[in-house]
Amino acid sequence: MNSAERQVVVIGGSDAGVSAALRIRELDHAANVTILLKDDFPNWSVCGLPYYLSGETPDWRELAHRTEFDGIDILRRHVAKRIDPVAQTVAVAASTDTERLLSYSSLIIATGAAPVQPDIPGMDLPRVHMLHTMGDALQVNRLLEDDPPSRSALIVGAGYIGLEMAEALVHRGLDVTVVSRAGTVFPTVDTPFGVAIGEELQRNGVTLVTDCTIEAIERAKDRQRLQIRGSRDFHDVADLVLVATGVQPESHLAAKAGAKLGTRGAIQVDRAMCTNVPNILAAGDCAETWHRILRCPAYIPLGTTAHKQGRVAGETALGGNRLFAGSVGTQIVKLFELSIARTGLLKREAISAGFDPATVEMEAWDHKAYYPGARKLRLRIMGDRRTGQLLGAQILGPWGAEISKRIDIFAAALFHGMAVAELNDLDLSYAPPFSSPWDPVQMVAQNWVARRA
Amino acid sequence: MNSAERQVVVIGGSDAGVSAALRIRELDHAANVTILLKDDFPNWSVCGLPYYLSGETPDWRELAHRTEFDGIDILRRHVAKRIDPVAQTVAVAASTDTERLLSYSSLIIATGAAPVQPDIPGMDLPRVHMLHTMGDALQVNRLLEDDPPSRSALIVGAGYIGLEMAEALVHRGLDVTVVSRAGTVFPTVDTPFGVAIGEELQRNGVTLVTDCTIEAIERAKDRQRLQIRGSRDFHDVADLVLVATGVQPESHLAAKAGAKLGTRGAIQVDRAMCTNVPNILAAGDCAETWHRILRCPAYIPLGTTAHKQGRVAGETALGGNRLFAGSVGTQIVKLFELSIARTGLLKREAISAGFDPATVEMEAWDHKAYYPGARKLRLRIMGDRRTGQLLGAQILGPWGAEISKRIDIFAAALFHGMAVAELNDLDLSYAPPFSSPWDPVQMVAQNWVARRA
Repeated sequence: MNSAERQVVVIGGSDAGVSAALRIRELDHAANVTILLKDDFPNWSVCGLPYYLSGETPDWRELAHRTEFDGIDILRRHVAKRIDPVAQTVAVAASTDTERLLSYSSLIIATGAAPVQPDIPGMDLPRVHMLHTMGDALQVNRLLEDDPPSRSALIVGAGYIGLEMAEALVHRGLDVTVVSRAGTVFPTVDTPFGVAIGEELQRNGVTLVTDCTIEAIERAKDRQRLQIRGSRDFHDVADLVLVATGVQPESHLAAKAGAKLGTRGAIQVDRAMCTNVPNILAAGDCAETWHRILRCPAYIPLGTTAHKQGRVAGETALGGNRLFAGSVGTQIVKLFELSIARTGLLKREAISAGFDPATVEMEAWDHKAYYPGARKLRLRIMGDRRTGQLLGAQILGPWGAEISKRIDIFAAALFHGMAVAELNDLDLSYAPPFSSPWDPVQMVAQNWVARRA
Repeated sequence: MNSAERQVVVIGGSDAGVSAALRIRELDHAANVTILLKDDFPNWSVCGLPYYLSGETPDWRELAHRTEFDGIDILRRHVAKRIDPVAQTVAVAASTDTERLLSYSSLIIATGAAPVQPDIPGMDLPRVHMLHTMGDALQVNRLLEDDPPSRSALIVGAGYIGLEMAEALVHRGLDVTVVSRAGTVFPTVDTPFGVAIGEELQRNGVTLVTDCTIEAIERAKDRQRLQIRGSRDFHDVADLVLVATGVQPESHLAAKAGAKLGTRGAIQVDRAMCTNVPNILAAGDCAETWHRILRCPAYIPLGTTAHKQGRVAGETALGGNRLFAGSVGTQIVKLFELSIARTGLLKREAISAGFDPATVEMEAWDHKAYYPGARKLRLRIMGDRRTGQLLGAQILGPWGAEISKRIDIFAAALFHGMAVAELNDLDLSYAPPFSSPWDPVQMVAQNWVARRA
């Protein structure tokens, strides 16, 4: 196919869709690429919404990952209604428009994820919000600037978005309560770190309610406020409720076109990002993610993965043969002064995959203690008792202690299937203001090896 | 051999020697391990000497990497005079002692390196110093505290130690001049970074003299000061001269025992750290380093490598089969507010090894620009035009921008022989306060791939 005949349609203009489109244009300047964008915000950094609402990023326009889309045709406020996989057309509607058909030679579905809407009476009340799109953020911001402004917020859910929003609203001056269904917050890390994160939240004035399920949200007597009722006799009144109880893939449109769904309802894809339907690809939070350690598909909706999958989908649409190398489960979050990072498996995941996991935790200085400003890190490492294979790692410590790129050393090791003991072989950088002759990631590896022996 | 018969003697109590001894005791609690230590400072952090002299680490005792040497017999102020490789004995002398013989079943030579003493008249004057041992540092410190205290210093050499000492003495309040033989400072990184480092030194008040060779040092007329003369009509007067023009391996003792010497006079070793003499091993700055990219021995005296080699030597002494995995050339330094890191090859090394290197430089924010405190990094990446193989990377930017552990991502990639394009496959951590969905190490890799195409 020459460039003139190539007509790529991308449904979705967030990380995966834009990454695919850009890669196509980078490799083939003559390719026709059209992105269907539901709203007005192409390639917006949704990870930045908490910082807009906190006031740290005062201008929401700064949240654009990019504003130049050289040669890409972006149809704003356009929604894909139906796909005809035989005729290779997409029926498209704009808010002010009648439906029309777009032909494609390749279609990339990058419809993302949608927040899970829990079954709580009162979810439809005006001051109850989810936070997933730029539109959501602008609405919540208006509530914060109301007259009188919101002074208190209750957050349902203690995952990434819930906790980042807790920090954001404390920063904005609100009284914040976080309600977690589990006994600790942040189930994506091991319990001891969840406990430490909970303490950091409380140290910063957040009221933390654990082991509690919200059962109803009602208008309070003064009509402006909300009354919240949960299990274990929990009662609260707040100006604002934010619900952040996870996301699910937006895969209905793909399914109706014949695409098979897999893990947690995400679109099944191979590692070239092809669905089972000819010339239809999928990438990002609507699709499955190849897990490099588990060697099977998983559902891990993340911006980093969406960018990588989009790039691969773009290459595949041009007939390339690059494969998505897989996720190893790397994630990081900053909460107040704390950085919390993880990569690899959790213990329960390792066990159910047939590993025999052993975990070791230790403390280490981020750099030589004699050089000013040294701070303590907590490092956890998990390996397989039988083979010594590295299975995962977690680090908790102060922001600025190079925790993000330290977890990335573990991530690179996991990518290559290294043994815990082999971490000692890595030629890592050292000078007293940065590390120790054995970096903390190596100290904890040595600790694991010694305790296992 | 059972533990009771095992008698390991280690010559040298710095990084490599202590690392070997500790590993032996960790694996075999009953092993007899004796370390011969020239001075009173076992496993001192010589990398910390500049921070002691700057005043940032006021108590020199804090520079000890460790103070516990459980079960290891450390003979302080003991010097090895001769090795008899047939009788397997070492002749040892203490300052207050007559010579005696120690028997060994394994001997580990970890005698380190010595500073290169340039052939300059006046090198023996009292206020002219090298800086290599804790003893040197204590002597220089006395000069700084003299009555009247030293107010100006001239530093000969613009490598790691020379520049770290320049920062240290500025911090201590001295007027500092650095004299470099080359046209830029810090030849261990590419010229554009050398230029930036020179500017940072000057911004902080250091007088920088390039393309200059020191020809003589004499007593000044007031007898307390030194008069320095160099090429190109250079003249200066200073209270103190520090000479830091590199190091060379301390390999004489090993050579006299029959050990072959290799690159730059370092002791030849295999990857188990064995010399050619039975039961004699060598590790650290006295020995060659296996270069993982060049696949040949090199001389790269560094604390990180010394620790790794020592650990391997310790295992070999116990009959283990671990091999030293090799260096990829990772180094970092902090100079004033700048961090400068490198890993892999320099262009000239790549060319002489038969590669076809191409280098790309770009700027990137350390984290999303919309989150407060973002700072610009300069990243350089070098790959082989023919194969796409990653050959090296360098990063320059402000201290605290996770430059150390970012270079380590490249180091891990080099360790595994990755292609530049494969850096995009790494599942690296991202949240707006830490990075971007593509980390800067991936942005520069994409840039390299795009410009090469």
